[in-house]
Amino acid sequence: MLIVQKYGGTSVANVERIKAVAERVVRSAREGNKVVVVVSAMSGETDKLINLAHHLSSNPNEREMDLLLSSGERITSALTAMAIGELGHKAMALTGRQMGIITDTFHTKAKIERITGERARKALDDGYIIVVAGFQGITEGGSDVTTLGRGGSDLSAVAIASALDADRCEIYTDVDGVYTTDPNIVPEARKLEKISYEEMLELASLGAKVLQTRSVEFAMKYGTPVVVRSSFNDNPGTLVTREDKDMEKVVVSGVAYDKNQVKLTVMGVPDKPGIAAKLFKGIAEANIVVDMIVQNVSSGGKATDISFTVPKTDSGKALKLTEGIAKELGAGGVNLGEGIAKISIVGVGMRTHSGVAAQMFEVLARHGINIMMISTSEIKVSCIIDLKYTELAVRVLHDVFNLAEVK
Amino acid sequence: MLIVQKYGGTSVANVERIKAVAERVVRSAREGNKVVVVVSAMSGETDKLINLAHHLSSNPNEREMDLLLSSGERITSALTAMAIGELGHKAMALTGRQMGIITDTFHTKAKIERITGERARKALDDGYIIVVAGFQGITEGGSDVTTLGRGGSDLSAVAIASALDADRCEIYTDVDGVYTTDPNIVPEARKLEKISYEEMLELASLGAKVLQTRSVEFAMKYGTPVVVRSSFNDNPGTLVTREDKDMEKVVVSGVAYDKNQVKLTVMGVPDKPGIAAKLFKGIAEANIVVDMIVQNVSSGGKATDISFTVPKTDSGKALKLTEGIAKELGAGGVNLGEGIAKISIVGVGMRTHSGVAAQMFEVLARHGINIMMISTSEIKVSCIIDLKYTELAVRVLHDVFNLAEVK
Repeated sequence: MLIVQKYGGTSVANVERIKAVAERVVRSAREGNKVVVVVSAMSGETDKLINLAHHLSSNPNEREMDLLLSSGERITSALTAMAIGELGHKAMALTGRQMGIITDTFHTKAKIERITGERARKALDDGYIIVVAGFQGITEGGSDVTTLGRGGSDLSAVAIASALDADRCEIYTDVDGVYTTDPNIVPEARKLEKISYEEMLELASLGAKVLQTRSVEFAMKYGTPVVVRSSFNDNPGTLVTREDKDMEKVVVSGVAYDKNQVKLTVMGVPDKPGIAAKLFKGIAEANIVVDMIVQNVSSGGKATDISFTVPKTDSGKALKLTEGIAKELGAGGVNLGEGIAKISIVGVGMRTHSGVAAQMFEVLARHGINIMMISTSEIKVSCIIDLKYTELAVRVLHDVFNLAEVK
Repeated sequence: MLIVQKYGGTSVANVERIKAVAERVVRSAREGNKVVVVVSAMSGETDKLINLAHHLSSNPNEREMDLLLSSGERITSALTAMAIGELGHKAMALTGRQMGIITDTFHTKAKIERITGERARKALDDGYIIVVAGFQGITEGGSDVTTLGRGGSDLSAVAIASALDADRCEIYTDVDGVYTTDPNIVPEARKLEKISYEEMLELASLGAKVLQTRSVEFAMKYGTPVVVRSSFNDNPGTLVTREDKDMEKVVVSGVAYDKNQVKLTVMGVPDKPGIAAKLFKGIAEANIVVDMIVQNVSSGGKATDISFTVPKTDSGKALKLTEGIAKELGAGGVNLGEGIAKISIVGVGMRTHSGVAAQMFEVLARHGINIMMISTSEIKVSCIIDLKYTELAVRVLHDVFNLAEVK
């Protein structure tokens, strides 16, 4: 088998852990597998470099930022290759460039366009374990280094796995896999044996930060099987894969929450076509990601309220911008709602089971939790509630859908 | 003017110092110069990386070592470019690859073969200050990263200066320039206004560690004027340049010492042709650099003693090797002399002035300092003496040749 193994920052945080990674990798190779390892920067390193940059410049050039940030993963790849060599196995470290990871030119958030991978293929055939510096690529023609954004090493790993047609992409992290919810809130939370790409996508983007969202999209697009597991034990982890019949039997797979949003409400918006477009175009142009949007028809029929959520970090920028647009539109004013949380239930089984949303609303109501906004998709229902009820909501939802029980 | 400025590790050791470097660079650019900056890794970084490697592997792969070690300079180049940008000047960081520094494939001690430099030339014409990561290059075809060995950033700077036909290469360090001797030993030691490449070469390789030896050779070959000066003040520094008439008037320019050698003596070597060749061929093959060699004709005429010096770090290896060869040759035995120092006087004026060596021997003798070995070249005389007399010897020689006086 050809296996791609990705190790995050905590898994390569120091010499001892790099040695442990090397042992795991070599074990896998000695079982007869070809192994490509993708490594992140040692934990803390990237933040250290970002700090240095911000001490030197209020607005660091992004091309130079990428050159700077790509160093952390290069260091880990070289060190890991050395550690593997020390165990008596041939190993070769490859940078993003040497791996042939071609991206677009959007520095600090580049998108992978293709992976050539010739050198890796040849070295694998020659019996080498390949250790690739994650998170980075080069522009077409190779003139500049790019990085893929936070969590980009997950994407590197999945993209390499698909380019090399690997049998499996293993993402090693500091948790055992994907849980039905946050075990810190619900001790009975159960590790999922497998989960569909779609569910993982909803869980990841909703705050279960095990696997970077773009990497899941990529894996889904190419059908690459991804296993999320711990680098600190031998537990089997969670397989992220194509939806199958088994999965549909489970109505709700997990409960996610996100405490990092704020709610903006534009009141008294004139009820005319094109208003919402104008509002959200302005916000999108400022690169602010809007998550939920709810528009209520006003009682009088002449004006309406529009509510939406944005990341907490963008709240100041979003508020200022929205106030400006509201004025232009002749709206009544803008209200910033902080202290909120988004609670979501996710499951591909929802498609074939009705009444799931109603059950969610009912259980929240029964516990006195007021719902401020609702948003639904085929496989998820999300509600915005008061922040202080977050843990309570997660617990009662986990309980009502029997998530602690093995299905 | 086109100026190349190289800043060593102590000059870019932290955020404040990088800012100071940026200010100096921008000042130079605003005076109307095109400026290429070459930076080392922040001081301590390279050692930190080497330590990590040695904790992971008893014998780290050199290809991976180069990938690892080249990271330090990449980081500094990106940070320095950001700091320059913050001062309102366009700046572009270039890696060894982006600068087009092509080397041979001898990892960890690669030699520069040529520098293409197209991107730098274009960016200079476009008004950018270029910041090059020192110490590194790439192999022909670009597949691998190489490094140039300790002090390699000096070589990067001089080679870039010659490739771009720069008017001057300024080496910024933590000392004011090149002194007549170590000011820690002789407080009256005087900073030299200028010095010839040849003298600098003798002084550098003899222990006055201001400028890497290979970089001086490179500058000499291409006639690149090099200025050694401090990054902590505005003193003019020392110009290293072609020998001129002025220089010949000065008989002795400086006194150097080296405490990092040991002396090996092979006793009772049969006095036959080819013996010395056999001995030193064996040592050279072990990559041990022999410095001084002295052979005395033995009194009887049938056997001889051969003494030579090697770096202290190689003493164990050299002793073992020499004992083996001595046995083969039927020699009497090998004696290891530790606790020695090499004292040298250097000056292009020696070529035209006789009696300089005699004057050296005489003053040493007058102070009771015994000479164990002597070696001379056109512009230098070196003596091996007892380690404990090092400082005394330096002082009396500095004094007898009136080096404290401006010539």
